[in-house]
Amino acid sequence: MSADRSPQVGTPANMRGLNQRAVLERLRTAGPATRPQIATDTGLSKPTVGQALLDLEQHGLVRTAGRTLAGPGRSAVVYEVDPSAGHVLGIDIGRGLIRVAVADLSGAVVARIDERNRARSASALMRIVHEGAENAFEQAGIRIGDVVSTVVGTPGVPDAGSATLQQAPNLPGWERKGLLKELESVLGTEMTVENDANLSAVGEHESGAARGVDASVCVTVGTGIGMGIILDGRLYRGAHGAAGEIGYLPFGWPSGGGMPDVDYAKQRQGMLESAAAAHSVVEHATRTGLTKIRTAKDVFEAARHGDEAALEVVEEEANRLAFVVSAVAAVIDPELVVVAGGIGKNHDLLAVPLERAMGRVTPMRPKIVPGELGEEAALTGAIATALRTARDVVFDRRGQAG
Amino acid sequence: MSADRSPQVGTPANMRGLNQRAVLERLRTAGPATRPQIATDTGLSKPTVGQALLDLEQHGLVRTAGRTLAGPGRSAVVYEVDPSAGHVLGIDIGRGLIRVAVADLSGAVVARIDERNRARSASALMRIVHEGAENAFEQAGIRIGDVVSTVVGTPGVPDAGSATLQQAPNLPGWERKGLLKELESVLGTEMTVENDANLSAVGEHESGAARGVDASVCVTVGTGIGMGIILDGRLYRGAHGAAGEIGYLPFGWPSGGGMPDVDYAKQRQGMLESAAAAHSVVEHATRTGLTKIRTAKDVFEAARHGDEAALEVVEEEANRLAFVVSAVAAVIDPELVVVAGGIGKNHDLLAVPLERAMGRVTPMRPKIVPGELGEEAALTGAIATALRTARDVVFDRRGQAG
Repeated sequence: MSADRSPQVGTPANMRGLNQRAVLERLRTAGPATRPQIATDTGLSKPTVGQALLDLEQHGLVRTAGRTLAGPGRSAVVYEVDPSAGHVLGIDIGRGLIRVAVADLSGAVVARIDERNRARSASALMRIVHEGAENAFEQAGIRIGDVVSTVVGTPGVPDAGSATLQQAPNLPGWERKGLLKELESVLGTEMTVENDANLSAVGEHESGAARGVDASVCVTVGTGIGMGIILDGRLYRGAHGAAGEIGYLPFGWPSGGGMPDVDYAKQRQGMLESAAAAHSVVEHATRTGLTKIRTAKDVFEAARHGDEAALEVVEEEANRLAFVVSAVAAVIDPELVVVAGGIGKNHDLLAVPLERAMGRVTPMRPKIVPGELGEEAALTGAIATALRTARDVVFDRRGQAG
Repeated sequence: MSADRSPQVGTPANMRGLNQRAVLERLRTAGPATRPQIATDTGLSKPTVGQALLDLEQHGLVRTAGRTLAGPGRSAVVYEVDPSAGHVLGIDIGRGLIRVAVADLSGAVVARIDERNRARSASALMRIVHEGAENAFEQAGIRIGDVVSTVVGTPGVPDAGSATLQQAPNLPGWERKGLLKELESVLGTEMTVENDANLSAVGEHESGAARGVDASVCVTVGTGIGMGIILDGRLYRGAHGAAGEIGYLPFGWPSGGGMPDVDYAKQRQGMLESAAAAHSVVEHATRTGLTKIRTAKDVFEAARHGDEAALEVVEEEANRLAFVVSAVAAVIDPELVVVAGGIGKNHDLLAVPLERAMGRVTPMRPKIVPGELGEEAALTGAIATALRTARDVVFDRRGQAG
């Protein structure tokens, strides 16, 4: 912290830093404003706001955006956050697509790239990720050095100690030791790695279906199955970063007695995941005798056209989701359950049988809603997470000078 | 807040309040101490500590406890918390016993009463609770007016809005509307009502098996089945106070497809509770052909004596616990799982088959330990919760005077 380079009467340096933060936060959340407007909204005095604006402008964090139109009073200078003070990089690594976005400090996405994931090895996948980032930088007209914070979403549980991803069997080679260090070196920048279902929950909480809800979960059902948990408005990760790994919920437990037939330690796939993720929908459809079905999407389409067998498969999937939601409700009693992902997004078909099943098995009635961000949820969460860090980094780096 | 009745130089009233709190906290957590010791431990100056002690003594919160023995230096006055500044009442309402304790502000239990619960109606039960409290007051030599804070633990989910307990089918009439208001009027004092499994978790975290663990759960298996969750060192209640209602975990779900046979909405007992609580252990034992078995305790005793059939029943109960623990781990990934209650306390028999079952069904490995407080866990949690409120109440009531 650099203190008192241009001393003012009676305002200690840390106080000035706090005032600057308050002014910046006001401009970020409620948009451009004049000095008197900011004073009203923050409760700070006009001279204090004036000094904070001066400091922030001097350090490239705030800029003028014209003047108010001449109305009854004098026209006044309008200030806004200077979005070019830094950029953030968000990446969502999925089995089908690598999604990349660059945003400026105002949160505006200035580049957005999709790369097909055809990789059959960890090294190939990392090359695609790197390529995606390079293409996004070019689109945004920035260089890697302009990136203040990077957040990468991926299946699996990141273990910071060993720089390794655990429980990510759906991506080839993706659990190899030290992978996260490699990825960092390929990208050429420090990064934070986060479970993709966690980022989806952050995304839906930031600007989707869970906006303003303190205790929510976001269940993502697609190729795999995962869940992110928001408690007290913040992402809850658990003691080992594995909170919400609901693919491991104990589905398929003989109620008469004894243990499940399968040794899941050997199978390397969670009990619930093997029963409710996309491939099981397809398998079930095939068993039911549905023809011309290649993907889960085909099954839902057939159901939408009234195919009886497809509707039966959909109902069974809804039953399995009821297993998930009733288990989650019994443990953490969320206010809201967002259902998202390639399977989860078929809310039009799933909602009624899901609620019916819930009614039979539990007195808990969490509100169940579809995700609003679709496939962009995790990327939105990555950008939101990166922005939170970036704003602090930029603020600290440029000095809370005064 | 009463400010500046005896003004001192340069110490604003709220600062003096903070200093008093710091000194009081030091005496509470680390025991009696002299002025210099307190200064060292709190980082406050000796004159500040002296002033705080004077204030606290004047308001009956701190008292002298003699002098240090004459050693190399001068002997010094030793101060301690005045435990008689107020008392708290803790009550744990169980199906078999009503446990009542009175503690002073130091946390020392000064009265402890058990009342048999033979009640067949809510009114009868409330009379027993009231009787227990009266007996405890007599034992402690206090009157109801001396009680600063009361915490009552009970099965069920308290709903403050309707002053009603929900999901407490094991106590007759205990779900009737406005019950909590009635109980308050019978006891003659304001009270906080908390789910008993939640209080057990608080108890084990305060002074039992989960001491110092930030993310832990306490699973209580006995007549019923419940769980309390500690996150970031604090009780987590969920959006509707129903977090940890694991009796409703979806046990007995046909993995082949379809829904459970039973309509649990009609049965009014949770899927898991009906499969893993004490009565099901007895039922299972009876089916297995065990004779002379009346209680779950008998089954565990027989197993301890090597009875093969009893051991089989115990193993099956361990399997069902593995269902619970693997489900909880998949959702919130706790660092520690405390297993407690009448069934749970048989850790000597349950631990090995439980760990074996976990190894087969999930890669999650939370540490699983037995409770340390036995049947006293919920009462300990009630007292701890009441003390937290009481200390603030007494401090505020007596004035942070200066």
